[in-house]
Amino acid sequence: MTDSTRRSPLHDFLAPDSIAIIGASTDPTKRGYKALVGLLEGGYEGRIYPINPKAPEIMGLAAYPSILALPAAADLALICTPAAAVPGILRDCGKNGVRGAVILASGFAEVGGSGVQLEAETLAAARDAGVRIIGPNTSGMFNLHKHINLLALQDVKPGDIGIVSQSGNMLLSLALQAQRNGFIGFSTYVGPGNQTDIGFGDYLRYLSEDEKTRVATFYVEGFRDGRAFLEAAREATRVKPVVVYKSGSTEAGQKSASSHTGALAGSYAMTVDLLRQCGVNVVAQSDEILPVAEGLGLLQQAPGKRIAILSDGGGQATIASDRISEAGLKLAELSTLTRERLANILFSQASLSNPIDVAGSTDANPGLFTDCVDILLRDEQVDIVFLVGMFGGYSIRFDQSLQPAEEHCATEMARCVRERGKGMVVYSLYAPVRPQALMTLREAGIPVYDSIEYAVTTLRALSDRGTYLKHANVPPQNLELGVTDEATVLFERALAEQRDLLEPEARAVLASYEVPVPDSRWVRNDTELGQAARHFAGTPVAMKIVSRDILHKSDAGGVRLNLASEQDLHSARETILRNCRGYSPDAALEGVLLTPMARKGIEVIIGASRDPVFGPVVMFGLGGIFVELFKDVAFRAAPLSRHDAESMLAQVKAARILDGLRGEAPVNKAALVDLLLRISAIITQYPEIESLDLNPVIVHSDGYEVVDARIIVGTDDQTRGNE
Amino acid sequence: MTDSTRRSPLHDFLAPDSIAIIGASTDPTKRGYKALVGLLEGGYEGRIYPINPKAPEIMGLAAYPSILALPAAADLALICTPAAAVPGILRDCGKNGVRGAVILASGFAEVGGSGVQLEAETLAAARDAGVRIIGPNTSGMFNLHKHINLLALQDVKPGDIGIVSQSGNMLLSLALQAQRNGFIGFSTYVGPGNQTDIGFGDYLRYLSEDEKTRVATFYVEGFRDGRAFLEAAREATRVKPVVVYKSGSTEAGQKSASSHTGALAGSYAMTVDLLRQCGVNVVAQSDEILPVAEGLGLLQQAPGKRIAILSDGGGQATIASDRISEAGLKLAELSTLTRERLANILFSQASLSNPIDVAGSTDANPGLFTDCVDILLRDEQVDIVFLVGMFGGYSIRFDQSLQPAEEHCATEMARCVRERGKGMVVYSLYAPVRPQALMTLREAGIPVYDSIEYAVTTLRALSDRGTYLKHANVPPQNLELGVTDEATVLFERALAEQRDLLEPEARAVLASYEVPVPDSRWVRNDTELGQAARHFAGTPVAMKIVSRDILHKSDAGGVRLNLASEQDLHSARETILRNCRGYSPDAALEGVLLTPMARKGIEVIIGASRDPVFGPVVMFGLGGIFVELFKDVAFRAAPLSRHDAESMLAQVKAARILDGLRGEAPVNKAALVDLLLRISAIITQYPEIESLDLNPVIVHSDGYEVVDARIIVGTDDQTRGNE
Repeated sequence: MTDSTRRSPLHDFLAPDSIAIIGASTDPTKRGYKALVGLLEGGYEGRIYPINPKAPEIMGLAAYPSILALPAAADLALICTPAAAVPGILRDCGKNGVRGAVILASGFAEVGGSGVQLEAETLAAARDAGVRIIGPNTSGMFNLHKHINLLALQDVKPGDIGIVSQSGNMLLSLALQAQRNGFIGFSTYVGPGNQTDIGFGDYLRYLSEDEKTRVATFYVEGFRDGRAFLEAAREATRVKPVVVYKSGSTEAGQKSASSHTGALAGSYAMTVDLLRQCGVNVVAQSDEILPVAEGLGLLQQAPGKRIAILSDGGGQATIASDRISEAGLKLAELSTLTRERLANILFSQASLSNPIDVAGSTDANPGLFTDCVDILLRDEQVDIVFLVGMFGGYSIRFDQSLQPAEEHCATEMARCVRERGKGMVVYSLYAPVRPQALMTLREAGIPVYDSIEYAVTTLRALSDRGTYLKHANVPPQNLELGVTDEATVLFERALAEQRDLLEPEARAVLASYEVPVPDSRWVRNDTELGQAARHFAGTPVAMKIVSRDILHKSDAGGVRLNLASEQDLHSARETILRNCRGYSPDAALEGVLLTPMARKGIEVIIGASRDPVFGPVVMFGLGGIFVELFKDVAFRAAPLSRHDAESMLAQVKAARILDGLRGEAPVNKAALVDLLLRISAIITQYPEIESLDLNPVIVHSDGYEVVDARIIVGTDDQTRGNE
Repeated sequence: MTDSTRRSPLHDFLAPDSIAIIGASTDPTKRGYKALVGLLEGGYEGRIYPINPKAPEIMGLAAYPSILALPAAADLALICTPAAAVPGILRDCGKNGVRGAVILASGFAEVGGSGVQLEAETLAAARDAGVRIIGPNTSGMFNLHKHINLLALQDVKPGDIGIVSQSGNMLLSLALQAQRNGFIGFSTYVGPGNQTDIGFGDYLRYLSEDEKTRVATFYVEGFRDGRAFLEAAREATRVKPVVVYKSGSTEAGQKSASSHTGALAGSYAMTVDLLRQCGVNVVAQSDEILPVAEGLGLLQQAPGKRIAILSDGGGQATIASDRISEAGLKLAELSTLTRERLANILFSQASLSNPIDVAGSTDANPGLFTDCVDILLRDEQVDIVFLVGMFGGYSIRFDQSLQPAEEHCATEMARCVRERGKGMVVYSLYAPVRPQALMTLREAGIPVYDSIEYAVTTLRALSDRGTYLKHANVPPQNLELGVTDEATVLFERALAEQRDLLEPEARAVLASYEVPVPDSRWVRNDTELGQAARHFAGTPVAMKIVSRDILHKSDAGGVRLNLASEQDLHSARETILRNCRGYSPDAALEGVLLTPMARKGIEVIIGASRDPVFGPVVMFGLGGIFVELFKDVAFRAAPLSRHDAESMLAQVKAARILDGLRGEAPVNKAALVDLLLRISAIITQYPEIESLDLNPVIVHSDGYEVVDARIIVGTDDQTRGNE
C-alpha cells in the first residue's frame, strides 16, 4: 500500500518514529519504567524522550523536565500521570507537535461524577491541541514490527494478527495462548479504553491499511459508534479478515460488561447480524478467537463450503463429519475422476467417498497423503481440504524410521496447497506433542489444530468469508428511492404536532413508496361510515381506532374484526369509541379505520428502528410465537442491499415455513424482499422515524397484506401521549 | 468394595494375574511383540506366557508352543493371530481355563460376507469354551494400575479415568492430551470392537465396580444393546460419573460411523435423552471429553447450579457470565452476610455482586483469594465457586516476589475447598504456561482450565450430575399398572388376525388404562348411524374411516370434520367410503368412527415405540411445526418415573407455551404427566406393540382430549396392509 492511499491518521502515532514517555520512571513497578524498558529491550529504533521533572537521565537516555523542552516533535506520547493532570499535558503535547497520546489513567467517565467532566475537558483539550487520544483508561498499545511494546508484555513476537481489545486481560490471554502455540505473533495492539476520541471503527481502518496485519481481531464489550465500525468493516473485510468476539450474549454478561467498561451492550443478536452483514467473522466462543484468527490470517478465505475430509480412519473422521454438518458446511461430492485417482493409489478397502478413509494405505507410507491432497485439491467440487487424524504421529506410533518420509510429506503437501491455490486445514491427534512434521506444515502456512472443533470453526470462518466476498464483489442491484412529497408532508405535520403518525398516515407513507397497502377507509363521521359501508359492501372488514394517543389498539378495546353489515359497523364503532374513552379519557380519538379482513397466510413481522449505537436497522421475523418465544428474527443495517434482504428471509430458523410446509404453496419471497427494501429506504430517508412496525404482514403465494402499520416519530423532547 | 459385592465377571480378566500372548513375536512391528514389551517395561507383576510355536524363549521368558502347553491357567489371553485361527484357539483357551480373550484380528462381521459367519463361529466357540471375548476387531486394552498395557501405548500414566472407546485413535488422542496436561491418568481402557460378546453395558458395570476408576468415559459410535447400557448406567451413575460422547449427531456423521464400525446409529437426539435420563453426562464436543472427565473425576458433582464467579476483573468475568447463563446455570445470589464479609476485605471499588470483581485488591496480595473463596463457599446460596482470571500469573505479571504468596494461596484455597465440602473450578489465563501455583491447585484436586468454555462445560456437567443425584436418590412414586383384561383380548385378536389395532380398539386399550378417551361411536351400518346421530344430537362431530388397511386416514380422504345433522353424517359416510375404496380398492373398510370435535387448545404429540437398540421409548412434543420443523421432542426410556414424565414437559424448547403465552391459562400439566405414565405402562406391558401414537392430543387448562390414537402391532413376518 502506498502512502497516497493511506487515509487513517492513526499511522502517524501507532507506527511512530519518536515517542515521549510522560512520567518516565526509575521505579520498576511503574508503567513509566516498564514502557521504557519495553522500548529499550525491544530494540525500538526511533527516538525515545523520557519526560521526568527531576531526573536529567533515565536508563542512559537524556530526560526532559517537560514535553515543551523536547528538541523535536514526538509522534506519540505515552501519558503515565494521574487523570487530573491529563488536560494540561495534552495542551503541552499540542505545542510540541505530538500526533497522538496514549492515556493510561483511569478515573474518567467510567467512574461517573466528576470523571465525566474530566473526560470532556480532556477531549476538548486534545481537540484544541490537535492531538488524538487512545483511551483514557486504556491498557496501552504495542506495535511489534516497530519494536514498540508500551505494555512491556513479555514473550510476544511480531506477527500478522492485529488486536483491539476492550480488556487488557483478553490481550494477555491471547498472548499466553500464542506463546504456547509458538508460531502466532502480533502486529499492533490497542486498548481503546473509554473510546473518548478514537473508536473501534478508526482502529479497524488503521489495521486494514497496516501492511503487517493480515487479520484484524476485536474483543468488544460495547461499541460507542457502531455505525462507524460497520462502515469501516465493509471496507476492511474486502481487504483482509476481521474477527470480532462480542461479549454480552446474555443478560448476565451484559450486566457484567456494563460494570466493567460501562459499555452500552445493545442487542447481542442484532450486533452479530449487522457485523456479519459487513463481512465480519463473529466468533461465539472466547477460546476460538485465536484459532480462528490464526487460520484466517494464514488462509484468508475458502471459496465455498464444500469440504473434503481426508482421514486415516478412526472416530475422528466421524466427529469431523458431524461438526462439518452442524456448522452448515458440506462434505464435498467428489467427482468420478477424483475417486478413480484415489482408487489408483489407495488400498482397496479405502473409503473413497467423503470422508475419505485411507484405511491403512498410509501406515507405512505417509507420503501418499501428498498425492491424496493433490487429487482432492484438483477436484472442482472441493473448496478446501481438511486433513484429520494421525499425521505427524506416524513415526511416533508406527515406526521411527518413517520420520523423514513424514516430514518430507509435510513439505510436499504445503507446496501442493500453495500451487493449487486452495487451502488445507489440519487436525492431528499428535498436535499436543508438536512433532516436526506438523511444525513444518505450520511454518509453511497451513493451520494445524489440536481440536476438531477449533478446526471446523475455522473452516466455517474461512468459508463464510469466501462466500461473503463472492457477493460483496458483485455490484448490488439496489432500489434507489428518495423522499416522496406525500411522506415528507406527513412527517412535517407529525413533527409540528409533536405526535407519531396516525395509522392512515403510516399507510399513506407506505403507499407513497409503492408498497401495496390494502384498501382502507378512514371514517370520522356517520356520513363517511355510510360511504364506507357501501364501498365494502359484502366484504367483511376490520375496524380499528385512529388516535395519536393510543399505541396499543387491542389493549384499548379499539379493534373489531369480521364486520359485515352497516348495522355491524355502526355498533362496532360505538363500542370502540366507548372502550377507548374508558381506556384513555384524554386521548384524542380521530375516527376509525376500516380495512377488509386479511386472507389466510403466514404471519411475518417487519420492523425498522433507529438504534442508538448502529443507526437505522431493519428487522424481519415470522410472527406469533416465533418472535415471542424464540426471538427468531434477523437484523440488517439500513440501507439494505437486495442480497441483505434475501439473506434475512433465509436466516430465520423458521425459514422453511416460507417455502411451504405440508405441501402448501411457497410464499412470494420476491415481494417480501421488495417490501424490506422499501422499508429500508423509508427509514433511511426520514431520520425523524424512531421506529416503524408492520405487525403483522400476512404473506401468501401471490404477495402480502400489511395488516397493521405503525410509525413512531422521534422528537427528543416531545411529551408523549398518555400511554 | 469387597469381593462379595463384585458382580462383574470382567474383573477376572480385565485385572488378570496371568496373561498369555498367543502369537508372541520377536518382530518389533508385531502386536505380539509390542504387547510383550508393554508388559515387561510396564512392570507387570503377574505371570506372562508367550505362546509361539517356534521360539522356546522370547525376551527372556519361557515360551510355549500352544496354550495347551501352559503349566497353569492364564486369566487373560491376548490373541494376535489372523481371524481364521481364532475359533480353534478359543477352544484351546477354554481347555486351559482362560477367563477372557482379547481378539485383535479384524475380518469378522464388520467386513460382511464370510466374516459374519466367522464371528458367529467365534462366539459359539467362546461360549462352549467358557471364555469371554473382548472384540474381535479391537484396539486392545490396558489396566495401568496392574501395569498391563497391551497396546504398548507410550507416556500414559495410571490415574482414575476409565475409558471404553470404539475408536483406538480416540484413545490415542485422549492419551496425548493427557500427556500434555501432565496430571491426567487412566485406569482401564477397553476397545469393545465388534461387541460380539461383551458390550458397553458390561464394561460400564466393570468400571463402576473398579476401585481405581473415579469416572467412566465412553466414546460410542453405536450401541449394540442400548437397553443394557441404560440399565448399567442407572446403577453406575449413583456411584460415580459416567461420561459419554456419542458420535453420529448428523446424517453425515452417521454415515461415516457406519462405514467405520458398522454401527447402527439410531436417533442421536433420542440417545442423548435416554442417557441423560440415567444420569449420564453426555458431552457434545469431542474436545470437551477429557476436560469434563477430568473435572468430574476430581469433583464428582456440584449440589446445584448456583455458581459464584470470583474474578480479578477484565473481560473474562463477563465471558464467564455469558457462558454460565447460556449453559442454563445461574449466577448465585449472594447473601447480605457474604457481601459484608467481602466488603470487609476488598477495596471499596470491588464489585460485590456476582460476578465478584476484586478490582485490584489482590494485585499485591493474592492471598486474599483464600478468604474470598472461603466466604463464598460458606454461603448457602453458592453451590460451587468459579475462580476466573490471572491467578497463577501474579508473580509473572506483577512482581516475582509474589510467587511464594501465590503458591501458599493455592495450597490454602485447596484446603479451604476440602474443608467446606464444596467444589471450585479454576480458569486462569496463565494456564497455558503452567505456573507452580496452578500446578499446586491441580495436584490438590482442583481442576484448572485454559479455556473458559471448557471450565463452564465442566461446571454444567458437575451441576447436572448433582441435580440428577438429588432426584435419583428419592424413591420414585410411580404408577404401577399391570396388564388389563380388555387390552389383552384386543392384542391377542390383532395378533391372531395379523393386523394392527383399529382405532376403536386403540381407544379401548387407552380406556382400559383409565385414559379419559372422548366419547365415540363406531358406526358400521345405517342403524348405528341413526343411533349415533341421536346420541351426538347438536354436537358437531368428526368422522373417520375404520380400516385395518388404512394407516393414513386423511391421505385416503377418510376424515370429515364438523358434521352436525344426520343428513351430514350420511353424506360424509358415503364420501369417506367412496374415497377410501378409490384410495385402496382391496382395503377392508370396517365402518367409520364418530367423535365430537375437539375443543380448541394446544396440540401435543405423545408417542411410544420399541427401539431396536433401546427397547420401549416414550416421546413427547408440541404438535405442528414444532415437531415437523424443529424436531422439538423429548424421549425417555419406558417405564417412566413421574420425574421422567415431568422432565419431558420441561425439556422441549416450546415448553413455555404450556405455561400459557399472552395471558392464556396454563395447561393441565399434571394430566399430561399422568397420560405419559399410562402410555409408558401400556408399551411396557405389551411387548407386541411396535408403536403407539396419540397425534394430536389437545391440551387445555382442565385436561386433554386424545384426538387420534394409533397402535401398530409388531409381528415380524407379518404382511402389512397395502399401504
